[in-house]
Amino acid sequence: MVITFRPNATPEQLHAVEAKLRDLGFQVVRAPSSGPTVLAAVGDGALPPLAEVCAMPGVAEALPIPEPFKLASRSFRRETTVLRIGDVEIGGTAVVLMAGPCTIESEDQMVRTAAAVRAAGARVLRGGAFKPRTSPYSFQGLGEEGLKLIRRVADANGLLVISEIMDKSQISLMERYVDILQVGARNMQNFSLLRELGKTEKTVLVKRGLSATVDEWLMSAEYVISGGNDRVIVCERGIRAYETYTRNTLDLNAVAVAKSLSHLPVIVDPSHAVGVRDKVVPLARAAIAAGADGLLVEVHNDPERAICDGQQSLFPEQFHALAKQVRQIADAVGRAL
Amino acid sequence: MVITFRPNATPEQLHAVEAKLRDLGFQVVRAPSSGPTVLAAVGDGALPPLAEVCAMPGVAEALPIPEPFKLASRSFRRETTVLRIGDVEIGGTAVVLMAGPCTIESEDQMVRTAAAVRAAGARVLRGGAFKPRTSPYSFQGLGEEGLKLIRRVADANGLLVISEIMDKSQISLMERYVDILQVGARNMQNFSLLRELGKTEKTVLVKRGLSATVDEWLMSAEYVISGGNDRVIVCERGIRAYETYTRNTLDLNAVAVAKSLSHLPVIVDPSHAVGVRDKVVPLARAAIAAGADGLLVEVHNDPERAICDGQQSLFPEQFHALAKQVRQIADAVGRAL
Amino acid sequence: MVITFRPNATPEQLHAVEAKLRDLGFQVVRAPSSGPTVLAAVGDGALPPLAEVCAMPGVAEALPIPEPFKLASRSFRRETTVLRIGDVEIGGTAVVLMAGPCTIESEDQMVRTAAAVRAAGARVLRGGAFKPRTSPYSFQGLGEEGLKLIRRVADANGLLVISEIMDKSQISLMERYVDILQVGARNMQNFSLLRELGKTEKTVLVKRGLSATVDEWLMSAEYVISGGNDRVIVCERGIRAYETYTRNTLDLNAVAVAKSLSHLPVIVDPSHAVGVRDKVVPLARAAIAAGADGLLVEVHNDPERAICDGQQSLFPEQFHALAKQVRQIADAVGRAL
Amino acid sequence: MVITFRPNATPEQLHAVEAKLRDLGFQVVRAPSSGPTVLAAVGDGALPPLAEVCAMPGVAEALPIPEPFKLASRSFRRETTVLRIGDVEIGGTAVVLMAGPCTIESEDQMVRTAAAVRAAGARVLRGGAFKPRTSPYSFQGLGEEGLKLIRRVADANGLLVISEIMDKSQISLMERYVDILQVGARNMQNFSLLRELGKTEKTVLVKRGLSATVDEWLMSAEYVISGGNDRVIVCERGIRAYETYTRNTLDLNAVAVAKSLSHLPVIVDPSHAVGVRDKVVPLARAAIAAGADGLLVEVHNDPERAICDGQQSLFPEQFHALAKQVRQIADAVGRAL
Repeated sequence: MVITFRPNATPEQLHAVEAKLRDLGFQVVRAPSSGPTVLAAVGDGALPPLAEVCAMPGVAEALPIPEPFKLASRSFRRETTVLRIGDVEIGGTAVVLMAGPCTIESEDQMVRTAAAVRAAGARVLRGGAFKPRTSPYSFQGLGEEGLKLIRRVADANGLLVISEIMDKSQISLMERYVDILQVGARNMQNFSLLRELGKTEKTVLVKRGLSATVDEWLMSAEYVISGGNDRVIVCERGIRAYETYTRNTLDLNAVAVAKSLSHLPVIVDPSHAVGVRDKVVPLARAAIAAGADGLLVEVHNDPERAICDGQQSLFPEQFHALAKQVRQIADAVGRAL
Repeated sequence: MVITFRPNATPEQLHAVEAKLRDLGFQVVRAPSSGPTVLAAVGDGALPPLAEVCAMPGVAEALPIPEPFKLASRSFRRETTVLRIGDVEIGGTAVVLMAGPCTIESEDQMVRTAAAVRAAGARVLRGGAFKPRTSPYSFQGLGEEGLKLIRRVADANGLLVISEIMDKSQISLMERYVDILQVGARNMQNFSLLRELGKTEKTVLVKRGLSATVDEWLMSAEYVISGGNDRVIVCERGIRAYETYTRNTLDLNAVAVAKSLSHLPVIVDPSHAVGVRDKVVPLARAAIAAGADGLLVEVHNDPERAICDGQQSLFPEQFHALAKQVRQIADAVGRAL
Repeated sequence: MVITFRPNATPEQLHAVEAKLRDLGFQVVRAPSSGPTVLAAVGDGALPPLAEVCAMPGVAEALPIPEPFKLASRSFRRETTVLRIGDVEIGGTAVVLMAGPCTIESEDQMVRTAAAVRAAGARVLRGGAFKPRTSPYSFQGLGEEGLKLIRRVADANGLLVISEIMDKSQISLMERYVDILQVGARNMQNFSLLRELGKTEKTVLVKRGLSATVDEWLMSAEYVISGGNDRVIVCERGIRAYETYTRNTLDLNAVAVAKSLSHLPVIVDPSHAVGVRDKVVPLARAAIAAGADGLLVEVHNDPERAICDGQQSLFPEQFHALAKQVRQIADAVGRAL
Repeated sequence: MVITFRPNATPEQLHAVEAKLRDLGFQVVRAPSSGPTVLAAVGDGALPPLAEVCAMPGVAEALPIPEPFKLASRSFRRETTVLRIGDVEIGGTAVVLMAGPCTIESEDQMVRTAAAVRAAGARVLRGGAFKPRTSPYSFQGLGEEGLKLIRRVADANGLLVISEIMDKSQISLMERYVDILQVGARNMQNFSLLRELGKTEKTVLVKRGLSATVDEWLMSAEYVISGGNDRVIVCERGIRAYETYTRNTLDLNAVAVAKSLSHLPVIVDPSHAVGVRDKVVPLARAAIAAGADGLLVEVHNDPERAICDGQQSLFPEQFHALAKQVRQIADAVGRAL
């Protein structure tokens, strides 16, 4: 249930409503809003007493939230959430480019790649220090060394850092180095992790699972928000289908659906969604045309020597050309870069 | 095998190569080309004698075609095919808009819709006279009456006509009224129909089946081309996935893959791919950004009274706004409208 | 709507109800039934006047049919349909084995294979004379020669014949040679074909399309039945999924669902569903355990020399061993072989 | 690489080979085997020096392991692994029934359900204390209280306990109460968890992810085994497809494939695979017919009052009837119950 108060509602009236709902077992959350106060009451499925709340002093309106994700829905919050980190806005008018290698490998690699993506217009540097690999025998990442490196290089280039977290035991370590904690597709329903991420103050980017519905994807975001952290971005990265020419199948239907159902910023990762370098560019453009709030793209200074995912990493000059096209397309849909 | 001849090859040399390949059981097809003569030898799987053909007088080069689709591949023909119908080009620099209702219902409906889509920039009018309906009890289309109507209205507005063919017995009838014969997703592997369409001179648009791979889709085009008709367009219209918010899942990976593997024009139908009106516009934009050569869009003068697919048909003014955005995005990717 | 009459209802009362429903635009079909007369009124979506029909003299009960497939549903006909062809029953207590090669190749092949499958307990001989091949360059079948051959060999072994029909223009030819007309997965929604098959008196087996829902599959059966032919079998043959170890993914959920929703016999084709010989046997057993009414299995006297699908064809001795296990499993689930 | 030693190989020869492979960076694992010593060398992708190892004294044979999963493959270990817990064997001749409620709710529920499943022939009691729920607002399980309860009830009935683990931080707690640690479908690629489970001595059951390939599924088992724990069972529980009549789609192809590629016991969970009570029974039978080593079935003493998944839980008498049919089918395929 989402409750909108009258402009002249008193703090006492507000507290009375909150108290009543808490007594009934609901969790009560206040919407970030510059207008009249808005509350949501969320809970385990029992319906809140709509008519009763409507009749309480100070209440302008009380409506059910039809979606299973409550705090992530536009029923709760109409305007798209804009997340500010430093001078970067995610979800605002400008689309955001996040770029960098799959895996943090070396100083040289990071320095060259960071400079290139910054010059092209990226604001966030990506790079994995803990890698979820299908095989236990594959390279698993540089760990904390990698985090130190990406932080240093990002700072030197005026970039933010996004990196993947694999387990709740890594939260305190990663918070020291990273601006955006990325939950990978394979962990989208690692509820223990999501719940803990509700307690950090860092921004969390939740990638869509390989065969997650839009509801399940937004429910995973809801885990983080309901845990107390409303700084959540969701990211489409391709679903599993039957085609073998590409790694996964980019699902822009889901972007359009998520944008209409949820106020959260929606980012697209075309690199994993297609897995073949020369197809990343057209799909990245398509994502912006479909209304995505930004891109998460793999770029490597020397893709042919990359430890991982080289075949889907863009060369720096390709990323540069992509950024130019993205700027034009963003303009065509009323955005900017 | 694709055989390129030397610029100074004589007709006798050409015939000698053709004769040898025919003797070996291959079908021999000449590529439409302004440069040196190019032949393809296609057949039932046995490999042609590459070295032997290479050594024949007049032959510059003989290469295998690695794709299972031979005549539809870029190995056979490097440049994108441009199909000209009247003054409309499909596959050229300009992207093409094909628009109109799902089903031909009435004179009034067709006149209003045709005028609206023409004004917005469409060059081809769509409308079904024979409808493949999941239920035998649903409206099955106006038949020849419908064809007469769409032809008359299209002519009055300077538009071409595209309409769906369901069975090979309809070919001679439909040829009298229609410029582009559309093979629906459900008939993509109706090989009896495809084979007969190889004998017409009309342009054929082959929609991708609901779970067809790119190879299977292009093999269906190959059926038509190998039958003697190289005027083929392929059309992505969404694949079947597990999401229930949308009707199907638009697959722009497949557009990028088909564009790189095949010289055939690739059109996208965002209406069936998503099935919900307000999502058609972002996905139509995305298709152009991904490199599609045009769009096939359902537009109805009064969608809420449409006999079929009203919920996915655009209002005329929405189509108009879409066309404006398409023009900008086409420009961003080096195309026009 | 399904209408059950009182045991003592008069022919006049029956005709009055039929006439009323026909006047309202419904198609009226009588259920094959040894008990009281049962009629179905089916049509284009408008709901029949339930209360009014209930009140007519002689009517015991009038109920809506909630499924989109009406005549194929158990709402219309509670007991499983038993189709009799000669002395073979399909849908009865005994499960039925249909077996033979993918493609009719030669007299020797057919004679050896037919004898082997007959000895193991098969009652129906399969073999394709018209082959739907993904590539236009692949062998397309022996045509009428093949049909003559399979008929002769089947007769000599006391077997029925099942063979695939690809186009409605083949109906009159195939009726002369074949007992069961098979509609392939790729033609499951070739509605022109299905509609014509409603006019034959032959039994029709409708294979499930590669990504058809159970509703769509049964709707295709409904096309045939509503056209006037209630001799319909449906056949599960695997759906398209993402696994590459197997050709398709056998869907026994669909068998259990179809058996509960429809009175039609349900057959399983494990050969196409898995596509790898040594996996056909366990999946064939599983199909019977799940409640299928029979199997359609590829068997070849010399699979390694088969023109088509050799890798999924059983050796005769494997089929023999399978039949023994099927007998035991049939017994465990209250059936026989 | 898998290395088989000669029967008369000396410990020194064995150590020399081990030392050489360790020096090259490989992990060396000894196969449990009553015959000649068998070692596997596994590592990060570099190929071991096959010819060189072959030539070392005492080595009978050295072969590559073509599968990406090494220790889980039949290339490493030919015979099916039989896991013994108390007097229960999993993977032996007898198939194993694991049954119980989705969620541990109360003493009464557990006592009644345990007695019923034991009487029918089950050897393992299932029940969740930590529940991975799509919604953060749903009941999340009784936690340790639930574990104590299921242990007590299982002991009183001579049953083993299987229960789901959601996070590596729960390992030490769960080890105290549980015989088999279940990794749920959503955590199949929670590599942090899998790696830690490699260090326990408990048996681990790895459920297949919702859209995992067989390779990915067995790779997750490989994580546990390569971490040092070879007591692993894998469990098929349905994949995500497009049908809406059922919750998921049971994939028995995968069971047949996994049984042929891997020596690990394969269990099937028909309850989650179909999600509708009356379809669980036929699919459970089908799983045994397809060669599964056992079943994991939801049974509840009062399904209509179950907190979770009631619609897919069997009534005790249904489970009893199922067990009887399973016994007959097991017999048909050379197994027992």
